[in-house]
Amino acid sequence: MGRINSIVYRLKLLIKAVILPATILLLSDQTYCQAVDARQTAKIPHPCLILKKSDLPALRAGIKNLPLLKQSADASREIANKAIQSGIRVPVPADPGGGYTHEQHKMNYISMYHAAMVYQLSGEKQYAVFVRDMLLKYASLYPTLGLHPERKGPGPGKIFWQGLNDAVWLVYTIQAYDGIFDFLSENQRSDIESQLFRNIVKFFTVEDSYSFNRVHNHGTWAVAGVGMTGMVLGDKKLTDMALYSTRLDGSGGFVKQIKDLFSPDGYYSEGPYYQRYAILPFILFAKALDNNRPELNIFQLKEGVLTKSVMSLIQLSNTDGRFYPLNDAMKEKSLDTPELVYATNITFGLTGNRELLDVISRLGQVMISADGMKAARMIKENQTLPFVRKTVLLRDGVDGKQGGLAILRSGEGANQSAAVFKFTTQGMGHGHFDRLSYIFYDHGNEVITDYGSARYLNIESKDGGRYLAENKSWACQTVAHNTVVADEKSQFGANVEESEKYHPELLFSDFENPSCQIIAASDSNSYSGITLQRTLTRIEINGREFLVDLFRVENQSKANYDLPFYYNGQIISTNFKYEKELSSKKAIGSRNGYEHLWLDAKAPSVNQTASITFMKDKYFYTLSILGDKQTDLLFTSLGANDPNFNLRQESGILVRQNQSSSHSFVTVLESHGDYDPGNEIVQNSAGSVKNLELVSAGNTCSLIRISLIDGTIVNMGIAHGPDPEKIHTIRAGSDNFSWKGNYRLLTDKKQ
Amino acid sequence: MGRINSIVYRLKLLIKAVILPATILLLSDQTYCQAVDARQTAKIPHPCLILKKSDLPALRAGIKNLPLLKQSADASREIANKAIQSGIRVPVPADPGGGYTHEQHKMNYISMYHAAMVYQLSGEKQYAVFVRDMLLKYASLYPTLGLHPERKGPGPGKIFWQGLNDAVWLVYTIQAYDGIFDFLSENQRSDIESQLFRNIVKFFTVEDSYSFNRVHNHGTWAVAGVGMTGMVLGDKKLTDMALYSTRLDGSGGFVKQIKDLFSPDGYYSEGPYYQRYAILPFILFAKALDNNRPELNIFQLKEGVLTKSVMSLIQLSNTDGRFYPLNDAMKEKSLDTPELVYATNITFGLTGNRELLDVISRLGQVMISADGMKAARMIKENQTLPFVRKTVLLRDGVDGKQGGLAILRSGEGANQSAAVFKFTTQGMGHGHFDRLSYIFYDHGNEVITDYGSARYLNIESKDGGRYLAENKSWACQTVAHNTVVADEKSQFGANVEESEKYHPELLFSDFENPSCQIIAASDSNSYSGITLQRTLTRIEINGREFLVDLFRVENQSKANYDLPFYYNGQIISTNFKYEKELSSKKAIGSRNGYEHLWLDAKAPSVNQTASITFMKDKYFYTLSILGDKQTDLLFTSLGANDPNFNLRQESGILVRQNQSSSHSFVTVLESHGDYDPGNEIVQNSAGSVKNLELVSAGNTCSLIRISLIDGTIVNMGIAHGPDPEKIHTIRAGSDNFSWKGNYRLLTDKKQ
Repeated sequence: MGRINSIVYRLKLLIKAVILPATILLLSDQTYCQAVDARQTAKIPHPCLILKKSDLPALRAGIKNLPLLKQSADASREIANKAIQSGIRVPVPADPGGGYTHEQHKMNYISMYHAAMVYQLSGEKQYAVFVRDMLLKYASLYPTLGLHPERKGPGPGKIFWQGLNDAVWLVYTIQAYDGIFDFLSENQRSDIESQLFRNIVKFFTVEDSYSFNRVHNHGTWAVAGVGMTGMVLGDKKLTDMALYSTRLDGSGGFVKQIKDLFSPDGYYSEGPYYQRYAILPFILFAKALDNNRPELNIFQLKEGVLTKSVMSLIQLSNTDGRFYPLNDAMKEKSLDTPELVYATNITFGLTGNRELLDVISRLGQVMISADGMKAARMIKENQTLPFVRKTVLLRDGVDGKQGGLAILRSGEGANQSAAVFKFTTQGMGHGHFDRLSYIFYDHGNEVITDYGSARYLNIESKDGGRYLAENKSWACQTVAHNTVVADEKSQFGANVEESEKYHPELLFSDFENPSCQIIAASDSNSYSGITLQRTLTRIEINGREFLVDLFRVENQSKANYDLPFYYNGQIISTNFKYEKELSSKKAIGSRNGYEHLWLDAKAPSVNQTASITFMKDKYFYTLSILGDKQTDLLFTSLGANDPNFNLRQESGILVRQNQSSSHSFVTVLESHGDYDPGNEIVQNSAGSVKNLELVSAGNTCSLIRISLIDGTIVNMGIAHGPDPEKIHTIRAGSDNFSWKGNYRLLTDKKQ
Repeated sequence: MGRINSIVYRLKLLIKAVILPATILLLSDQTYCQAVDARQTAKIPHPCLILKKSDLPALRAGIKNLPLLKQSADASREIANKAIQSGIRVPVPADPGGGYTHEQHKMNYISMYHAAMVYQLSGEKQYAVFVRDMLLKYASLYPTLGLHPERKGPGPGKIFWQGLNDAVWLVYTIQAYDGIFDFLSENQRSDIESQLFRNIVKFFTVEDSYSFNRVHNHGTWAVAGVGMTGMVLGDKKLTDMALYSTRLDGSGGFVKQIKDLFSPDGYYSEGPYYQRYAILPFILFAKALDNNRPELNIFQLKEGVLTKSVMSLIQLSNTDGRFYPLNDAMKEKSLDTPELVYATNITFGLTGNRELLDVISRLGQVMISADGMKAARMIKENQTLPFVRKTVLLRDGVDGKQGGLAILRSGEGANQSAAVFKFTTQGMGHGHFDRLSYIFYDHGNEVITDYGSARYLNIESKDGGRYLAENKSWACQTVAHNTVVADEKSQFGANVEESEKYHPELLFSDFENPSCQIIAASDSNSYSGITLQRTLTRIEINGREFLVDLFRVENQSKANYDLPFYYNGQIISTNFKYEKELSSKKAIGSRNGYEHLWLDAKAPSVNQTASITFMKDKYFYTLSILGDKQTDLLFTSLGANDPNFNLRQESGILVRQNQSSSHSFVTVLESHGDYDPGNEIVQNSAGSVKNLELVSAGNTCSLIRISLIDGTIVNMGIAHGPDPEKIHTIRAGSDNFSWKGNYRLLTDKKQ
C-alpha cells in the first residue's frame, strides 16, 4: 500500500471506529453469543454469501464489456463444461492425497462451484442440474461414511483423509448450493440440507470438534465452512459457533483466530506458504459476514488486520511472484493461486488500493462478484498502478512484540534483490528451527537459499504427498538454514513445544536510507547459556551491493559453532586452498540434519579473509568470510542418508568455528558482474572485498572494517545490547575508533 | 523454410544455375585465380562491403518510420556513445580471454563498427573522429607487437591470445574503416592502411598462414577479414587469396571452406554451437562478395548451401531458442546472438522466407543495411510467419553420405518436444565421442541431457575461460553421453584422428506419420569387432508420447556394455528395489570419464522391466528398461575427481549389461502428466508402461512388445542390417510373429 493510500485507509478505519464504537465494543466483549441478528431466515435472498443476488444484473451486463470478467466467466464455464462432460462421479472415499478419490472429490467441489457461478450468470439450467444431481449423490453417500480409511493423526476427514480437506470441500460446496438454492424444490433442499450439510456440520461441531475450535488455519477452514453454511441455511447459531467456538464463549472461533493468528502487521506465524493457504477462508468468510452481518464490522477487527494481512502476504513474494519458502513451504508456490484471486479482489473492493490491480492483472482472472467486476472495470480503464515491493518489517506475535521478519530490498522490477531476515516465533507445527537465518534473492533467483519443506505435494508415490521423513530429519533442523548451529544441535533441541515458549527480539531497524538499510535481532533461548545476535546491513558502495552480516555469539563456556550458507550456483573461484574429496566422500555427521550433508571439500584453519565466488545464471556473487586459526570452511552437498532420493542436491558452505566461547562471525555477500552469453562479454566477475577486520568486538558495540580492492575502506560501527533502549549511536572519534578512508557508516537507532 | 517457399527457392536457384553456367563452371574449376574482376580500385564507392553507399539514402529515410530499424540504429548509437564517453583505450595486449586487454580490444572493434554505422546514417562527425583516432592508435601500436604473451598452441594472435580473435577484430574493423573511408585524408588512409591493415593482412597470409589456409572456422574468420580488406583496399589479389588460399590454387580458402565444411543439407560438422559462431564470417564475406564480385554467385555455390546452413542452424535450436549442446558447446547459447542477426537478415534478403521474420523479431534488431531495412519493413507490415521447427534429417559430410543428425519433433510452440539423435562425423577438434547418442527436450527443458563442454567462457578465474581439463577427461568421453560404452572405454579410444577416419551410417528414416517417426543408424568402427545399431521411434499412443529406443550391440566376443541416461529432474519413484549409498560413496571407476561419476545407488540383476519416474518442473517422465539377470542399474551423480569444482552436479542412470556378446538394449521414455502448483492438482504422475519384451532379436529384424497398464499392447517390428538396401518391411504374420492387441506398428523403409 502506498504511503498516502495507507494514511487515507487508516483515517477511514479511525472514522469507522469512532462512528461504530458499539460494534467494536461488541467484538471485544466476551458475551459474543448474544450478538443481535434480527434477520429472519425465510427472507434470505439467494445467493447471499459472496456473490449477492442484487449484484447479478450488473454482473450480467459487465461480462459483455469487461475483458477480464468475461475471461473469468469463460474459465468457469470451461471448468463446468469439462465436469459435465465427464459425468458425475462421487466415489466412496478410499485414497490419500494425490490418489483417485482424493483428486475426484477435489475436482467435484471446484466444478460445482464454477457450475453454480455459470448458472447465476447465464440462467442456463444444465449447470444447476449438474450441481443439484451431484449434491444429491453426496446427500446419499455422506450419511454412510465413517472416518476416511487413510486418515492420519488428529483431525481426520470423511470425504478426504484429512478433515481439513472436508472443510475446504464445504467452503466451496456451500457457495455452489447457495448459487442454485432458488432452482431447487423444497424436497430437494430438505434432502440436501438434512442428509449432507447438517451431517457435515455435525461432524465438525460435535463428532470431531478438534479442528473447529482450534486457533489454527485448519480451524479457519472449518469455521468458514460451518459459518457460511449457517448463513445459507438461516441458522444463526451455526454462524455464532463459527464466530465464537462451539462453546459460544470466544475461546475459539473466527474472531479469536483473526486476533491471535495475525500480528498487527498482518504477519501469520506459520509463514507465507500457509498464510497464502489460510487467507482464503479468512477473507471469504469475512466477506460473507460483511454481506450478511455487517454490524460485526469484521474487516475493522484489530485495526483492519485482514486486509493488512493480504498486503503483507504479497510483500512476502519475490519480484517473480514466488513466495519466500519459509518454514514448511513448497518452493514453486507463487501468487498465481486461486487463493490470491479471492484475497486481492475482496481487499481491492474494500480498500481501492490500485496497486492490487497489478497483481490481479498478473493473475489473469477475477472473482465473479461485485469486487471482481470493479477490479475488471478499473483494469480496463488503465487505472492500474505497479505493485511496489519495498523494504518492510513485519512484526510477529499477537501484539507485534514477538520478533518478526524483515525484507531489505534494493533495485526495481525483475532485477530487484531482497534479503529476507527471519526472527519470528516458531510458527506452530509447520515452523523450522531457523531463528536469525536469512535468505537472499537477486535477479529473480534465490541465491542464498532455504530448503523449504521435504515434500512432493499430491504426488502419491512420494508417501502419498505427505511431509516426508526428511522434512523432520533435514528441512526443519537448524543446520538446514543459514544461521548459527551450536555444537551440531538444533535450536531448542528441535523441540517445538519448547520453542513455542520463546521468541527472538527485534533490536533495531533503520530503512530510511535506501543505500544503507539495517536490521538487528537477538535470541537468548535457542541454546541454553548462549545469546545470538545478528545484524544485517545492505549497503551500496560505488555502485556495488553488499550485504554485511555480523553474527555475534555470546557464551561463557566453549562450544563449536557452525554457520552454513546454502547457495544456488556454481563455484567459480576461491582465494584460499581447499582439499577436495576426490574419489570417495562421507557424510559430515550422524544426527540433527548433519547426516544428510556430504563433505565435498574442506579448508582447515583458514586464518584470512576467505572469499568464495559463485555464479548463478548470468550473475556473480562473492561471499567473504573473516576467518581465524579456529575457522574451518567446509563445502557440502545435500543427499547423504537419503534412501529414497527424496532430497534435492543442493550446495553449501559451512563456516565452522571450533571450540570458542564468544565469537563474532563477520561475512559480506557481494552481488556483482554479469555474463552476456549472446555477446560473450563478462563484466566484473571478481568480487571487490579485499579484507575484513573486526576492529573491536565489545559488549556495547562492534566495529568492522571492510577494505575493497579499489582502496575504499568502509568502517562500520554497530551498537548492540539486549535492551533496545540502551542501543546508541557509535560516533566518529569515540570508542578509540578512528574513522579512516572515504566512506563512513554511522548507524543510529531510530524509532 | 515452408515447403512451398522451399520449392520456389529451389526453382530460383535452378534458373540461376541455368542462366549462369559459366560462373558455376568457374567455381568448380581449379583455376580460380584467373577469375575476372575488371573493376578499378580507384572507382570503389565507400562503403562498399555490406552497407553500400547507394543504400544510404533509403536507410536514412527508413530509420524515421521503421521501428525495428530505428531501434537498431539507436542501439548502435548507444554503444558508440558509451565508447566515446569512455575515451579511446588501445592497451598493449597482455591478458587472456576475459582479462582487461582482451575485453577492451573486443569492445573496441564493436564500438568502432557501430560508430561507423552511426556516422553513415547521421553524418555526425564525432563518430567518424572516434573511429579515425582509434584506428590511428592501432596503426601506431600494431607494428610494435610481437606474438601475444598469453598465446597457446597453434594459431597465436598479436592483439589477442588467439589469432582467431585477431581475425574477428579485422572482420569488424575493416567494416568500420570502410564506413569512414570518405571522411579520411589521403595521409590518414595511407597511415592506417600501411601500418595497420597491410601488416595484419601480412600476419595472416605470410607470417602465420596456419589458420588462413585451414579448412576450419578459424580459417573462415581469417579469410573473411583478409578478403574484405582486399575489397576495401582495392587489392584484388588479397581477396583472391581469401577465396583460394595463399597459394591461389583452391587448396584452401573460402570456396573450399564452403564446399567442405557444410554438408549438402547445411550441417556443419562441428555442431550448432560452432556453426553459430562460424556462420557470421561465412555470411558476411559472402554478402560482401555478392555486392562486389557478383559474377562469383557465391550464394549459389553447392546449391545454395550457405542459406541452407542458416535455416538448418535455426532448426538446431530448441523451441526456447537454445541451441542443442552437441560437441563442445556452451549450454546457455541461443539464437539471441549478433551472429544470428547477420545470418537471418542476409538470408532473408536473399530468400524472402517470411518465417525468418519471426526469428528476426525475437532478436529485436536488424542490420543497418538494405537487408535489415527490408526485414524491418516487412515486420512492420505484419508479414511475419511463425518459424516452424519440424522433424528434420540433416545429413553430414561433404557429399551428405557421412551419417547425420535427426530431430524428431512433436507438438507445437513452447510445449514442443524434440528427440535429437546424433550419428554425425566426429566434428574435428571440438567433437565428442558420442556416436548414436540422443538427447530429449520437452516443454522447453532439456530432459535427457548432454553435458556440453566443460568450460566457463570468458571467465578468467576458470583457467582464463579456456576449455578445462574436465572437457577432455569428462565432456568428450563416451560415458558422458547417452550411448553405449563397451568395456568402460570411449569410442576409438578417444582418439580424434582415428575417429575422423570413419562415420556412422544412416540406415533408414520415416517421418511421414507425425504420430510415428522413426530413425535408425549404425556404427561399426567405434569399437573394434562391435557393430552398434540404434533405432529411435517416437510414437503417440492414446494421447501419450513414447520414445522407443532399440540399441543393438553385435559382438562375437563378450564384453561389458554401459548405456547411460543423464536426466534433468528429481527421482519420484521406481518399480524395483535399489541399494542407496547412505553415509559414504565412491567414484564408479578410475578412467575414461568414469572417474568423475559418483555411485549413488545400485540395483543388481534387475531381471524385469524396470521403470524410473522423475519429475522436471511440472512434468513427469518415466524411463522403462528391459532388464535381465545380467543387467545392473546404477544411479550416478557427477563431480568425483573434480578438484576445482569445475563440473556441474548432474544425475544419471547407467544401464549396465555384464559380460554379454550380442545384446539389445530396449528402453522406452514416456512423457506424461503435469503438476499445477497454483491449484495443487497432479495428473498422470505415473508412467503407463507395464512391461517390455524383446520377442525376437534376429539379424534381419527385432520384434518388441510394449504392454501398457491400460491393456494396450504395442507390437513393433524393426528391420535392420548393415546395408540400407537390404532393410525391408516386417509384415504382419511373417517371421513367426503374431500381431496381437489393438495397436500395431509396421515400419516400412521408404526412400
